[in-house]
Amino acid sequence: MAKAFIVGAGPGDRRLLTVAAAEAIAAADVILCDRLVSDEIIALAKDSAEIIYVGKHPGEQPVTQNRIFALFSQYANENKVLVRLKGGDPYVFGRGWEEHVCLKQLGYEVTLVPGITSAVGVPAVADIPLTARGVASAFAVVTGHCCGEEKVDWEKFAGIDTLVVLMGVSERTTIARSLIDAGRPGHEPVAFVISGSTKEQRVVRADLASVALGQVDVSSPAVFVIRAVTALGGQLLIDAPQILHELETPRLVDGLGRLRSAS
Amino acid sequence: MAKAFIVGAGPGDRRLLTVAAAEAIAAADVILCDRLVSDEIIALAKDSAEIIYVGKHPGEQPVTQNRIFALFSQYANENKVLVRLKGGDPYVFGRGWEEHVCLKQLGYEVTLVPGITSAVGVPAVADIPLTARGVASAFAVVTGHCCGEEKVDWEKFAGIDTLVVLMGVSERTTIARSLIDAGRPGHEPVAFVISGSTKEQRVVRADLASVALGQVDVSSPAVFVIRAVTALGGQLLIDAPQILHELETPRLVDGLGRLRSAS
Repeated sequence: MAKAFIVGAGPGDRRLLTVAAAEAIAAADVILCDRLVSDEIIALAKDSAEIIYVGKHPGEQPVTQNRIFALFSQYANENKVLVRLKGGDPYVFGRGWEEHVCLKQLGYEVTLVPGITSAVGVPAVADIPLTARGVASAFAVVTGHCCGEEKVDWEKFAGIDTLVVLMGVSERTTIARSLIDAGRPGHEPVAFVISGSTKEQRVVRADLASVALGQVDVSSPAVFVIRAVTALGGQLLIDAPQILHELETPRLVDGLGRLRSAS
Repeated sequence: MAKAFIVGAGPGDRRLLTVAAAEAIAAADVILCDRLVSDEIIALAKDSAEIIYVGKHPGEQPVTQNRIFALFSQYANENKVLVRLKGGDPYVFGRGWEEHVCLKQLGYEVTLVPGITSAVGVPAVADIPLTARGVASAFAVVTGHCCGEEKVDWEKFAGIDTLVVLMGVSERTTIARSLIDAGRPGHEPVAFVISGSTKEQRVVRADLASVALGQVDVSSPAVFVIRAVTALGGQLLIDAPQILHELETPRLVDGLGRLRSAS
């Protein structure tokens, strides 16, 4: 039986691959690869591996989903290890589920290897927590680039503390305007994390209203975070006397001395 | 300067650790560890590493957050590598942000290592996609176990395609009832993935109404997925004649033969 691994490559940095993903890539005979997967990750493949890019490259004709299914079909009767390598997590957008169904129907033995979705990992490496006690107790993830006629109903997301929009750069003005129309305050802090977890990582901060007015320049790929909570180091959250009560060791004095001077 | 790594250990399986997380654990002199982190992950630490459990063990007095801050303080002036090891992703609940702020204020050089959040990785390994074309184009993640007086307003989540509730097992009846009151249909398929990604993984499937009626037995820890889309293998999503058009190689015939017999 032909073996296939559907592998999430995470947000970009090679070190944010899982151990299982790195092993699958190293074992692959054929890799069908998305464009968002970085060269340093593909470099983990063995020299003899056949690498086929099936993602959309800017300015090129996109590879259709049926072409990907056809490639699955082509290798189904060969005794090879096929890896379908996708940016982020395979089940967070990106049609991982359809591809899993297709591979099973073609007779492959399929292993799914989850990855760190950019929706969570990219804000994290940019020090933007999606949840924080007293600030955000839930988050939602949505794609800004809807497939076909399906339109996002932004009103559904009006009340969610933190909202992460993937593939939302080109539509950011419309998205921000729709969210304000749906009741989100224009002064909400937002952030775009561009090329998150790579050497080119940049963060653009603004408020929702500026984005709605078309005043915020951003390049793709970027993760768009709405209600990006205050940057680190804002407030002192720790209560020194309380800590003294909790810990009864002489070494504490040093630590507390430093704590107190920080407040 | 003391070094600290806030590390997400992922959903449980050692092979779902990131490469960066495995390296940080192996380098650690001191590990402050949550209870959800598995023994096989902790086994990656060097023999001389000091392992301190700070998570809540069932039936034991929980370690307070201030005790954790106090331990950070205790090691702040030592030339040691401290790893704060947390289940899932450090910024998805679990107070990672507060701990990051505290470590910075204590003078540590802090590196955040994201992990696969159980909210995404656990449904994935149980073959439950959070998004799927034509079925679910967004998902939200919320905690069912709210801190202090803060109550979850379930109405906010009525319209989100897929909802993932972490730490929601003990409150599942109330949560399901609130979601139905907020307008979600009682016949929505739900799944609890228990001990996801570990050898003890089990999936309990039901509909939302049965959960609301208290008819669904589940043990903790489990990830509660509302609108858990149909299991794999349901429908044939691939269009054979279309594939023929896409791929013009003689090898296709074999593959298509198998495809046709599957339809």
